[in-house]
Amino acid sequence: MMNNNNHLVNLNPHLKKYDEDTLFHIGFSSAQDNLPEMFGDVKFVCMGGTAGRMRKYSEAFSRELEVEWTDYTKGERYGIFKAGPILCISHGIGKPSASIVLHEVIKLVNYAGCQDVVFIRMGTCGGINCEAGTVVVTNKALDEMLKPEYNLHVLGKLITRPTQLSQELAEDIISCKPSSNNFSIIRGNTLCTSDFFEGQARLDGAFCHYEEEDKMEYLKKVRDAGVRNIEMESAVVAGLCNAAQIKAAVVCVTLLDRLKTDQITLTHDQLSNYEKRPMDVILAYVSKKLGKGRKL
Amino acid sequence: MMNNNNHLVNLNPHLKKYDEDTLFHIGFSSAQDNLPEMFGDVKFVCMGGTAGRMRKYSEAFSRELEVEWTDYTKGERYGIFKAGPILCISHGIGKPSASIVLHEVIKLVNYAGCQDVVFIRMGTCGGINCEAGTVVVTNKALDEMLKPEYNLHVLGKLITRPTQLSQELAEDIISCKPSSNNFSIIRGNTLCTSDFFEGQARLDGAFCHYEEEDKMEYLKKVRDAGVRNIEMESAVVAGLCNAAQIKAAVVCVTLLDRLKTDQITLTHDQLSNYEKRPMDVILAYVSKKLGKGRKL
Repeated sequence: MMNNNNHLVNLNPHLKKYDEDTLFHIGFSSAQDNLPEMFGDVKFVCMGGTAGRMRKYSEAFSRELEVEWTDYTKGERYGIFKAGPILCISHGIGKPSASIVLHEVIKLVNYAGCQDVVFIRMGTCGGINCEAGTVVVTNKALDEMLKPEYNLHVLGKLITRPTQLSQELAEDIISCKPSSNNFSIIRGNTLCTSDFFEGQARLDGAFCHYEEEDKMEYLKKVRDAGVRNIEMESAVVAGLCNAAQIKAAVVCVTLLDRLKTDQITLTHDQLSNYEKRPMDVILAYVSKKLGKGRKL
Repeated sequence: MMNNNNHLVNLNPHLKKYDEDTLFHIGFSSAQDNLPEMFGDVKFVCMGGTAGRMRKYSEAFSRELEVEWTDYTKGERYGIFKAGPILCISHGIGKPSASIVLHEVIKLVNYAGCQDVVFIRMGTCGGINCEAGTVVVTNKALDEMLKPEYNLHVLGKLITRPTQLSQELAEDIISCKPSSNNFSIIRGNTLCTSDFFEGQARLDGAFCHYEEEDKMEYLKKVRDAGVRNIEMESAVVAGLCNAAQIKAAVVCVTLLDRLKTDQITLTHDQLSNYEKRPMDVILAYVSKKLGKGRKL
């Protein structure tokens, strides 16, 4: 029943030995689901933190692009929605959570026979030296040592994957800047951490063994490495998409400027407004790619 | 407005400078919510992957212990439910996601003035050398190098926290073995990884650069280190609870034996049945601690 997708077999030669591959966390089977029929037309995989946000994004894509909308969510770990050629999937918080989705979705699009798929993470983040509400398109994802690397222990050994994202795709996205926008879209490096509090030099976690000046010294080093925002998933999106030779982008909106504060104190309306901005940018990009006028 | 909780101030001396601490991801404020009134009676914080599972667990606790049930979930990142003295919170997948909840909940129980709180993670996992459906109570959480450590980069430097869990609590939990049980409860070390596929030596991820024999060699090394199960959050639960001097336990049910297979192919009914087992064990433990007969 396994389809012969040469690209996938190149990724992991063991997969050709399986009669059935159960994509446990997203709830599909390579043998029991007709993945080419369900997902063969997918051209864009959009990912973000929560299922609710990805549902809203997918509904907006469906409405604005006048394409069919389907809720493919099974189980409750990850939300999966399809709006025509756009698959919208939640990845939770952090690299380990996003890694599971990426492995299973990379297999999914390969089993489905999708061609020239682009992966885009649309998220929220902290900003560095830019006002809240700025949209940052990532050049490179940097780790806490400011290296452009996604590091992972495999069989007890550290392996490293590069986290440079497609410059072409980033430029393409920036050039489609939605005409209605009233916010800045900038490019910059993104610091990707494994922790929100201590890992991002916050003073307001349950623990903090350093002082304000240590925090500022680190954040200025971060700024000087060309970092404009901080989040927790870009490195694994970049690392695994690079490994799969999939073009990827990371487009996040800042909720605060970390050079000024640690606490996120936006009102519900501000937060909703900011959270729509990455979608607004990607809707403009997808509309252009699909040759559709944007109606927003 | 900040309450004077000396324990918390010892954890992070900076917190006393804030008039208000916004616990952004779980949706509470130290100044705007009356946390002592809402949560002052909490004695057990139970954590697990998904909001739906934590809702079910909390409903069962409420029903079986005849205590009041409240849904405190705000936003959609983490589900929060209270069943009398038991707070049930979802933590998502992976150490970074669980770390956020732990920081905010450790602050919450401190602001609420809770005394002698115990934290328990109740999850699912892969097994090592034990049949699917076995409940494993963790001794130590080990990292991929098989060290009992939770490692984190803070200000660009690696810091390490020990991940030995309370032996007394583990023994207490094991001794309350529910009389109705038809499954094994064992103790063992837990391998805590940052990735589900390559990080756990699976052959069925989107990528795999090693062979079956390399996988088995690593998993046997893991087994020889006293590991009976593999999951993705125990190290941060242990590391942060140790840092906060909170007694903690990790109680997980195995969904497969990794020495035999990589794929989870349980039916929905088997999965539901297995997922109830950690709750069954903790319900027996909590019932005894509260001096209530267990009615299941």
